Amino acid sequence: MTTLDRRKFLKVAGAGGAATAVAACDQPTAPAVHEAMPNLSWRMTSSFPKSLDTIYGAAETFARVVREMTDGRFQIQVFAGGELVGGLQAADSVTDGTVEMAHTASYYYWGKDPTFAIPTCIPFGLNCRMQNAWMYDGGGIDLVNKFYAGYNIYGLPGGNTGAQMGGWFRREINAAEDWKGLKIRIAGFGGAILSRLGAVPQQIAGGDIYPALEKGTIDAAEWVGPYDDEKLGFHRVARYYYYPGWWEGQAMLHFFINLEKWNSLPKAYQAIIRAAAKTADTTMMAGYDMQNPGAIRRLARAGAILRPFSEEVLDACFKASNDAYAELTANNANFKTIYEAMTAVRAEGYLWFQLSEQTMDTYMMIQQRKDAL
Amino acid sequence: MTTLDRRKFLKVAGAGGAATAVAACDQPTAPAVHEAMPNLSWRMTSSFPKSLDTIYGAAETFARVVREMTDGRFQIQVFAGGELVGGLQAADSVTDGTVEMAHTASYYYWGKDPTFAIPTCIPFGLNCRMQNAWMYDGGGIDLVNKFYAGYNIYGLPGGNTGAQMGGWFRREINAAEDWKGLKIRIAGFGGAILSRLGAVPQQIAGGDIYPALEKGTIDAAEWVGPYDDEKLGFHRVARYYYYPGWWEGQAMLHFFINLEKWNSLPKAYQAIIRAAAKTADTTMMAGYDMQNPGAIRRLARAGAILRPFSEEVLDACFKASNDAYAELTANNANFKTIYEAMTAVRAEGYLWFQLSEQTMDTYMMIQQRKDAL
Repeated sequence: MTTLDRRKFLKVAGAGGAATAVAACDQPTAPAVHEAMPNLSWRMTSSFPKSLDTIYGAAETFARVVREMTDGRFQIQVFAGGELVGGLQAADSVTDGTVEMAHTASYYYWGKDPTFAIPTCIPFGLNCRMQNAWMYDGGGIDLVNKFYAGYNIYGLPGGNTGAQMGGWFRREINAAEDWKGLKIRIAGFGGAILSRLGAVPQQIAGGDIYPALEKGTIDAAEWVGPYDDEKLGFHRVARYYYYPGWWEGQAMLHFFINLEKWNSLPKAYQAIIRAAAKTADTTMMAGYDMQNPGAIRRLARAGAILRPFSEEVLDACFKASNDAYAELTANNANFKTIYEAMTAVRAEGYLWFQLSEQTMDTYMMIQQRKDAL
Repeated sequence: MTTLDRRKFLKVAGAGGAATAVAACDQPTAPAVHEAMPNLSWRMTSSFPKSLDTIYGAAETFARVVREMTDGRFQIQVFAGGELVGGLQAADSVTDGTVEMAHTASYYYWGKDPTFAIPTCIPFGLNCRMQNAWMYDGGGIDLVNKFYAGYNIYGLPGGNTGAQMGGWFRREINAAEDWKGLKIRIAGFGGAILSRLGAVPQQIAGGDIYPALEKGTIDAAEWVGPYDDEKLGFHRVARYYYYPGWWEGQAMLHFFINLEKWNSLPKAYQAIIRAAAKTADTTMMAGYDMQNPGAIRRLARAGAILRPFSEEVLDACFKASNDAYAELTANNANFKTIYEAMTAVRAEGYLWFQLSEQTMDTYMMIQQRKDAL
């Protein structure tokens, strides 16, 4: 029986519990058939290479947890970016059903519609705690899925990097004017904002960034944060490591599932997928938070010069971002709806987080600098 | 068939798949029997009242998600604190098997051994992100379970409040001396540290705090944070709302499972419980982060006076905490092992979090104060 035949069979048998029981008794040597937990085999394309073990690993965690929870009945095979389809074709391959699902960054698809950027992050958006609050308790998942449905996609949060670094620069950024003419490797929507400041965003694949920085073909490059950046060795060819990464105050990845495939799943499998996605989401963030501290220490020891963007520089970037949002909300109803839901969480969140969270962290950071921890 | 009989039956039938299939065919009207996914019915006692909907709700979320993922085969009935056993007897009732599991705060049991406090929180410990990093990626869960095993318990993280507030005070705390003689309602290990500063910790149940504050029987009371505190109306009888809640920079709840019951579960059910616990953990934190902002606005409008503890006051509290930790690590090997694992995460974490996370949040908080969000 082919996989397709079996699925058709299950669909029929699944209509009634009694029919299933009879079928199982008629074929005592066949594997048990459970209408609520059928045998399924899916393919998931990741947008990421295996070398980004924390990010790519979130897809593998998801697949493993689904397999364990279903006692092996629901198998999901993970493919790295490029193995089945290119990393940036992940959404299209879910929309058209080439694969059942993908693990990707929604903002890769902002060229189709800038609204795709918001569920990942937009410059000066939310921090990780607020993003989770919005998604898991504030209706964010349902709201975003009204938009994704237009692309035949059901999306669930599936990992986070936390606040990224602002990237590696061959020269200092001391004033807003210093962005002008700066050739910077940056992916996605953040580059569109930087171009409003006069920078010249470059789209360069991960493996090609180092030589471009070394030769001076580009002046700067943003990638992720210490743990991933260290592997590519950027500190050897661009000494200034700027922060904060204001275009990615957090970056939430998503599992994109073909909407018809999602709707055809038994309720138990939908629940299992939701919990597996939360597992991937939580453990990827935990992974970065465990790995980044050691990496930043090693990078600083190896000569990286840590530099904060000044408030004046950030003010110019914030203004450029808000100008872009004003235009987008005026012209794009989807963007407006989701943007305004996000900013409502942001305004409230940054009031509350000033109190215990920020003052406690600040006090502990003072102790860290005193070497008292 | 009683529940006990059914479990015995399942245990026997579960020994071989073929036996199960035959049993199912012999009884076509009985529910299907799956050796990997048996019908189970458990009881979970919560340490919390239903009125703490965010905390108590995490146990209900857990039970619902387990039920959904198993298509109703694994049922867990949740009981509020006091319905089956008292809130502070939850751990004992898991140890002796009175219930299969509990939802509780590990630090309630610090009187048995102060080591119980660390997996929840100890003063000047970790923030929520670091606690998750330690637990989910840094080996924290396994390390803590070596300790819990001595109490016949398997523990999994199951919810967080984030950084709590420092509580409601009838008079100001302007210097470390002001703690002396202060009668403050505070639960658990934090009270032991406060008593080193000269405060007089009081153990008072939630419903009795308001009248005690009103009459002046106590001078101060800590509960949780804005969302829960608002319901009890403390702002009407103690105006000063202090922060940060340095004894609870985060507070992680746990699901405690009877160790034999845990070990007897099929692997698929163990995986389901792990994912359901992560779901409860993530969604409880998200719930507080969505609900606290509105509550703090309302409390401030209703007359609460927000007051930060000064750095001098915090320095005295930090010293008192460290003095206690020095004594405990000298005398308690379990405490020493887990404390040192935690502080290793803390020292590294507070280095890294100073960069993008803190500077991004700080910039956004400045915009919030400018009313620019």
